[in-house]
Amino acid sequence: MHSSAALPSARDKLLFTPGPLTTSASVKQAMLHDAGSWHYDFNAKVRWIREELLRVARLSESQNDPYEVVLLQGSGTFGVEAVFSTCVPTQGKVAVLSNGAYGERMLAMLQAAKIDQVALRTPENTPSDPGGLSRLLAEDKGITHVAAVHCETTTGILNPIADVGAVARKHGRTFIVDAMSSFGAVPIDIRGWGIDYLISSSNKCVEGVPGFGFVFCRRALLLACEGQARTVSLDLLGQLKGFEKNGQFRFTPPTHVLLAFEQALKELELEGGVAGRGHRYHGNHRVLVEGMRRLGFQPYLGPETQSYIITSFYYPKDPRFSFETFYRSLSDKGFIIYPGKISQVDLFRIGSIGRLTVTDMQSLLAAIALTLDQMGVARPRV
Amino acid sequence: MHSSAALPSARDKLLFTPGPLTTSASVKQAMLHDAGSWHYDFNAKVRWIREELLRVARLSESQNDPYEVVLLQGSGTFGVEAVFSTCVPTQGKVAVLSNGAYGERMLAMLQAAKIDQVALRTPENTPSDPGGLSRLLAEDKGITHVAAVHCETTTGILNPIADVGAVARKHGRTFIVDAMSSFGAVPIDIRGWGIDYLISSSNKCVEGVPGFGFVFCRRALLLACEGQARTVSLDLLGQLKGFEKNGQFRFTPPTHVLLAFEQALKELELEGGVAGRGHRYHGNHRVLVEGMRRLGFQPYLGPETQSYIITSFYYPKDPRFSFETFYRSLSDKGFIIYPGKISQVDLFRIGSIGRLTVTDMQSLLAAIALTLDQMGVARPRV
Repeated sequence: MHSSAALPSARDKLLFTPGPLTTSASVKQAMLHDAGSWHYDFNAKVRWIREELLRVARLSESQNDPYEVVLLQGSGTFGVEAVFSTCVPTQGKVAVLSNGAYGERMLAMLQAAKIDQVALRTPENTPSDPGGLSRLLAEDKGITHVAAVHCETTTGILNPIADVGAVARKHGRTFIVDAMSSFGAVPIDIRGWGIDYLISSSNKCVEGVPGFGFVFCRRALLLACEGQARTVSLDLLGQLKGFEKNGQFRFTPPTHVLLAFEQALKELELEGGVAGRGHRYHGNHRVLVEGMRRLGFQPYLGPETQSYIITSFYYPKDPRFSFETFYRSLSDKGFIIYPGKISQVDLFRIGSIGRLTVTDMQSLLAAIALTLDQMGVARPRV
Repeated sequence: MHSSAALPSARDKLLFTPGPLTTSASVKQAMLHDAGSWHYDFNAKVRWIREELLRVARLSESQNDPYEVVLLQGSGTFGVEAVFSTCVPTQGKVAVLSNGAYGERMLAMLQAAKIDQVALRTPENTPSDPGGLSRLLAEDKGITHVAAVHCETTTGILNPIADVGAVARKHGRTFIVDAMSSFGAVPIDIRGWGIDYLISSSNKCVEGVPGFGFVFCRRALLLACEGQARTVSLDLLGQLKGFEKNGQFRFTPPTHVLLAFEQALKELELEGGVAGRGHRYHGNHRVLVEGMRRLGFQPYLGPETQSYIITSFYYPKDPRFSFETFYRSLSDKGFIIYPGKISQVDLFRIGSIGRLTVTDMQSLLAAIALTLDQMGVARPRV
């Protein structure tokens, strides 16, 4: 008997993850070209991408207090760290609202940079607490910046960043938001919510491929960070100056990833922008949760805090359930889900984002039902 | 009369640059798939890429003092900065051999990290000076690290890193080499030349697409850097530990770029490895220089210091020559060259690397001849 493991499959497995995501064929096909990173045609594309991102974020209207968007090579994490390491001065202090791995990662970045910090933690199933932040900011005048995660993909919880932003603004502190997995599909009023820096990346809800992050910044605030950057690569102001000097990235950009992102932005617009995309993801999420409940799975979060980006489910109580077997069996059927990330509870996660439709969610649910039966795991009679 | 500027062209322009380069169709086609960054199939590819890179670098034989290769998201510059910001301790001091923009960039990185530094500069047309380094290291016992650029693409000069490495080793200092544009096509004996850290990137002579860099490191030396990293994103030891823990990148990798790189490594092997690829590039360079001389162009460097990676040429003395017009006219014909990067002399550059053959060099030369005629620039009678 020969193994068929090495045989290439007829089509790609679908990714039900927080990213990298399943993207459209046309987004990937945009990468079939080599572009010169110094060439004017490529620079024009970079300029268009930056303008279009500002438009998607509703920040392109002429204003007294303009925003910029800075693209930065690397994963989205590099963008978050670029904000801290460029925009927080030596004497700064950052309050981090944390209820998951991405809040904790912010704290690790601050520690590496020897920036003073205070964590305002809530349990992983509990949204950040704007009231607690207000008390903290009133007490500790040394806090200069507040940092929060919008959709904490550790669990899929959606944090109340509008309320957090109102508190930060009331107390006159700079507000930094990691909106990695929400930007492009969850409406965010960056200016209105008092967000000074907002970070996302190419391979999330815009449905591009991974390779760079982008940071929306209040221009005046970023310009005031002159001389603060602790590295060259992650110097957000240096990067902005590069774009403004000659339209170029300072250092080699992931050209093919940018060509894919240009196409992804066009497809976002075709789908009706943030509202249209959010509508599809919301539908995916609803079908997923209803179907999983019918199969006996319980979501970790209540519906009032659950995003439509990614959903955590408890393992079934049946001792015949093994996540490893479940994961591999679904993968063999063409569906890649995601493990859990929190330590206290046994969870796995399923994403609703990327080029997936309700039909794909239904196919996944059918594969899950079959897999449970194959594993001999009891499930409610449908 | 209508402009045809917006009409898509039948084929991509060829890139005669130091990267991003023209790559094979099959390398780009490898990106037509979405891969899950947590999935075992993808992790197996990452592991293969790391093993294959060590093999290409002739570092995979079992040894008492093994090397590792660490892949890092971002451009190659991120990899260079990761070495400095992870591997040089607070009390360290770095001697940088500089004869171009990439040596100067190293100094800027050290300054941003507040790491003590000393520059040993030679003119841009003069190789680094191992004798001068030896005297400097004998005098200044505070110097802990020596950093050099192999092929300085500012001009195309090839620096004598074997001799520099011998000096660094004799004096017991750690040796860091930026081999961005040489690795994969110029033979480098990393272990034999006493190189402790060597950095290159995905979009140079391996002929992948841009999106990550990689760092060859002496394992024992990197492990001794525990606790030194100044950032999370550029923490080279953290990145190694991530690969060794679960085979994964700590943060989202550019999955499509890695699929392209896997294919690029296979094609490097098919071409006969570093020797075979170097042979082709050498041939490209020879045809280029001979042809350019026939057209009246003078190379900036003498043949004894000139790499076969990229070549700088003086502007013609004819006042009818305008680089802007020359560049755009060649671009319109399907050939993208590269501007100069040094301030004192008017130069432009032409690369010999990427998926280019002698035939492509001849086509470029014909286009240059035609362009000179169109511009009315005098050239020798052929």
